[in-house]
Amino acid sequence: MEVLNRIHSSADVKKLSPEELEMLAVELRVFLLNSVAKTGGHLASNLGAVELSLALHRVYDTSKDRLIFDVGHQSYVHKIITGRRERFDTLRQFGGISGFPKPVESDDDAFIAGHASNAISVAVGMAKARTLQHGDYNVVALLGDGALTGGLAYEGLAAAAASGEPMVIILNDNKMSIDPNVGGTARLLQDMRIRPGYIRFKRWYRDMMADAPELYQFSHRLKENIKGRVLPSNMFSAMGLNCLGPVDGHNIRELEAVLKLAKDYREPVLVHVITKKGKGVPFAEEHPEIYHGLGPFDPFTGEPEPVEAGFSDCFGETLCKLAEENDRLVGITAAMCLGTGMEHFASRFPDRFTDVGIAEGHATSMAAGMAKQGLIPVFAVYSSFLQRGFDMMIHDVSLLKLHVVFCIDRASLVGSDGETHHGIFDVSYLRTVPGMKIFAPASFSELRELLRKAVEEESGPVAIRYPRGGENTWSGLHPEREAVLQSGSDVTLVAYGTMIAEALKAAKQLETKGISAEVIKLSALDGKDFPETMKSLMKTGRLVCTEEVCAAGSLGTVLATAAAEQGIPLRARFLNLGEGIVVHGSRAELMRKYGIDAEAAVEATVALLGEQVPQQLPGTQV
Amino acid sequence: MEVLNRIHSSADVKKLSPEELEMLAVELRVFLLNSVAKTGGHLASNLGAVELSLALHRVYDTSKDRLIFDVGHQSYVHKIITGRRERFDTLRQFGGISGFPKPVESDDDAFIAGHASNAISVAVGMAKARTLQHGDYNVVALLGDGALTGGLAYEGLAAAAASGEPMVIILNDNKMSIDPNVGGTARLLQDMRIRPGYIRFKRWYRDMMADAPELYQFSHRLKENIKGRVLPSNMFSAMGLNCLGPVDGHNIRELEAVLKLAKDYREPVLVHVITKKGKGVPFAEEHPEIYHGLGPFDPFTGEPEPVEAGFSDCFGETLCKLAEENDRLVGITAAMCLGTGMEHFASRFPDRFTDVGIAEGHATSMAAGMAKQGLIPVFAVYSSFLQRGFDMMIHDVSLLKLHVVFCIDRASLVGSDGETHHGIFDVSYLRTVPGMKIFAPASFSELRELLRKAVEEESGPVAIRYPRGGENTWSGLHPEREAVLQSGSDVTLVAYGTMIAEALKAAKQLETKGISAEVIKLSALDGKDFPETMKSLMKTGRLVCTEEVCAAGSLGTVLATAAAEQGIPLRARFLNLGEGIVVHGSRAELMRKYGIDAEAAVEATVALLGEQVPQQLPGTQV
Repeated sequence: MEVLNRIHSSADVKKLSPEELEMLAVELRVFLLNSVAKTGGHLASNLGAVELSLALHRVYDTSKDRLIFDVGHQSYVHKIITGRRERFDTLRQFGGISGFPKPVESDDDAFIAGHASNAISVAVGMAKARTLQHGDYNVVALLGDGALTGGLAYEGLAAAAASGEPMVIILNDNKMSIDPNVGGTARLLQDMRIRPGYIRFKRWYRDMMADAPELYQFSHRLKENIKGRVLPSNMFSAMGLNCLGPVDGHNIRELEAVLKLAKDYREPVLVHVITKKGKGVPFAEEHPEIYHGLGPFDPFTGEPEPVEAGFSDCFGETLCKLAEENDRLVGITAAMCLGTGMEHFASRFPDRFTDVGIAEGHATSMAAGMAKQGLIPVFAVYSSFLQRGFDMMIHDVSLLKLHVVFCIDRASLVGSDGETHHGIFDVSYLRTVPGMKIFAPASFSELRELLRKAVEEESGPVAIRYPRGGENTWSGLHPEREAVLQSGSDVTLVAYGTMIAEALKAAKQLETKGISAEVIKLSALDGKDFPETMKSLMKTGRLVCTEEVCAAGSLGTVLATAAAEQGIPLRARFLNLGEGIVVHGSRAELMRKYGIDAEAAVEATVALLGEQVPQQLPGTQV
Repeated sequence: MEVLNRIHSSADVKKLSPEELEMLAVELRVFLLNSVAKTGGHLASNLGAVELSLALHRVYDTSKDRLIFDVGHQSYVHKIITGRRERFDTLRQFGGISGFPKPVESDDDAFIAGHASNAISVAVGMAKARTLQHGDYNVVALLGDGALTGGLAYEGLAAAAASGEPMVIILNDNKMSIDPNVGGTARLLQDMRIRPGYIRFKRWYRDMMADAPELYQFSHRLKENIKGRVLPSNMFSAMGLNCLGPVDGHNIRELEAVLKLAKDYREPVLVHVITKKGKGVPFAEEHPEIYHGLGPFDPFTGEPEPVEAGFSDCFGETLCKLAEENDRLVGITAAMCLGTGMEHFASRFPDRFTDVGIAEGHATSMAAGMAKQGLIPVFAVYSSFLQRGFDMMIHDVSLLKLHVVFCIDRASLVGSDGETHHGIFDVSYLRTVPGMKIFAPASFSELRELLRKAVEEESGPVAIRYPRGGENTWSGLHPEREAVLQSGSDVTLVAYGTMIAEALKAAKQLETKGISAEVIKLSALDGKDFPETMKSLMKTGRLVCTEEVCAAGSLGTVLATAAAEQGIPLRARFLNLGEGIVVHGSRAELMRKYGIDAEAAVEATVALLGEQVPQQLPGTQV
């Protein structure tokens, strides 16, 4: 790592000779491969962005210029060459560096990233701020082609064009994220071809006009006419953006030249870069979908460490079974076919499967249209990404009480992807959607049963939330709304989903201290009536409710409200993720840090027992 | 109304002679003008859509074909000619017909509408359902040009193109909703021109190919090439949509011909129709922005009934004042400049003002970018529409603790616009956003003070929510988090915003019954600590919390949770809007219907007093 070891900033990259640059690209690929093989993370996208990242650092200074990543899983090279190489073995580990850009880690990270399609909007905001405050820095947004399937990106593109703000939007097109079947945008990108003649013309034109800004303005109309003849009309230029490219994204020299040209514009420019996902590592080039994001693997063979079947697999199997029995069932995903376990459904029922791209809002409204006409759409989506469909759930699905089934994967803590990906707001936002039923299976068999119920027995909107990975130590079947798993008299422990294992563990530990805990498992989180729990609270007068979600809108607040309405006096501890900003790390580490594991429940119970127990009130009815 | 009186369905419209059709258009304009002058509502957009609506009913049968309105404020003619003419004097009144399409009113209303840009997505869903189930009906989405500024519409367009589903998307372009400055889309629409030669060619081509489907497929490539030469390349065709138009939207004959052509396609088609907002009524043509949506007015002069200054005006004034003092302040609106009271700011500080179009997601992310670079963005937006920015508030604003000020107008009940527009979910969704401060001014002077505080003293995300219209009977100034407005011993009444007037009124009525109520006004709705309220509850043991929002995530749940954590026993009644599906009507009518007015608070208190009062527990600490 002869060259890489000397690189700590944009400035260092600028000093390199062409030969050193080529060497650096090789060293970076070796470094990426070995590092990600150990820690897990995003491999293929970063391998594809090596030259593009270097070219960006040749042209810009990210300590001052603002480089905004979209999604951010192509930011590793940027992170490595801006002072975080030595900590790269802590990537995505608890206490280590994040797998996404994070301004708290470095001033070279201009913004946070994780959800798709926002980078252009953020860049427009920064460019406007720069101009208003007479700042002296450049603004660059870097996004993949997948991000273009999200409507937010179009809102951003339209705003960029309208703003006239000097800024560069780089489209890293690896032809991967957009499936050929997904959207008109893929087709459009195919049609775009480089016109070197146009680039030369434009440069000559600007040079000629540089000393005559008035003339430049005056002749803008002429310029537009000429452009129409030279550059192929496409959507981006139709919106008013200057377009450059496509450029070979693995040719640093060519990239650098085009990026410099783009930087020299005093208007918004879109640069279309073509890269190969997984570039330079045969197994990653061949199967970029496998090496997109994964756990640790063998760096020589690419063999990933085995992963046990989880809730996603269970969902996928059950969905296929239900689809066999009911031909009204259709499946929808938003660019997460593999992640949500829908691949078998997709191949077995291609006519009944739709991948909408990264467009959760559209998926939700489309599902509403399908349901209105008699289909039963099942939309499998990550908890955190469905936040984009919040309004559509209320407006399009709920107000008409339509039977749409939301299968919410990655609910609760997701681990190493961290703060932008945790599915810890869904209980709150789903409860806000009028009439939404919310199921929380705690085991595979409960998921099977509740999914069947959601499809076959319900008639309005239903959500089923389940976590990343597999079962915890409990694998029973109690799909009723409230189930008393263990009787007790001193405290009522309430939990749902795989957290029930923590509650049971806590009850066991409490038993050794001579404390008798009643354990209640919820499998439905909607509504306001929890009679079994109220009965238990009347008995124990103490509640410890442990949840893997944010405090606002949590079940704890619902139970407290029900108790107050019924005049049941209680002392309670609500163990949850507080305001909801949660770092990355393993689930166990995070549960400990935020105080929601079995040990925390034991501590909370012991503390409660040190306080006065409220007395039962006459006239209290459940 | 000789012709109009005979029209009750699509079938009746089809029977008319050209002369009768022309007469019907005139009669409809007279009817619209007189009717909306009495009830208030959307005038200009409906005047502009008379011929288009008639042409649609000539070509389609809306009792079977699915016509999906976007936003829906151009649906009056459709409603009038599908059996709702006689009830039109009840438009937007409590118990009367809705100002938007509503399937519960008529099978001719295919879907709900209110929020923008969703119609294409819904149509794609319906078209897919139709094809999968071998249904025999057509699917048509009708949207205004304003809807195209929303990213959801692009997601829908891309999906429509990719689906290949036979469906028609009608773009009613009245050049109004898109300000020339807003977005690249406006420019694009300007560039589109009709090519009659192309339409003729296409029709000939299809006829020729009709009997030879294989040849049709085979020659698709050829067709595409020809099309590229005949029709101007534009964004829509670049996405893979067939495009027809522009067509004169006031020429029924031409419209009918083009709509028939579009219907005959077996692919997705976009029809671009040009109309004039306010068509046929001079004052509405001249000032379509005034006659877009308004209250009752004089049908001869157009003079609207005077409206008193409200919270929006107070916000607008205060914003200008703060902007004078602080040049870091910038203003943002999402196509609601007038509605939010930003018009003075926009004209006085044009460089610091951005109207993003109907793009709340982009507005939120752009604001985040601005705040990251040191500006203080103030985004004025309707409560119900900000639901579209929910994910961006969490991901882009909150995780970086950025100082963005959300000024949330139309919070709480909005009255006659009804279920799609009530701002009754914001307390819940705002509380879910990590670190969001939430202010709820109850008077103009509180809005002034809290807005100043939000801009000058806060550092993270802040929301200020205030209702449509003006102050209630209370106009004091108590901007502290909790203010005890009146001492009492039997019950604690808690309220915020203009609801405080109801709480005070209830307290007065209770006094006449010999019941002593303590009245607490909240002006901050974030966090979990409400010590004054807890102190009061320890005294009274009874809580009645009245709120103009949905039950989930309401302040009542927060207070109950705090009480349970502190072991304060209480009996409570939570008066709110339940699951949140709330019909249209005046605010007073709705408050009565849903049981959240002063009378309801009195009843709830009396009922509570009939129950056992919980005793104070030793060891309870506040």
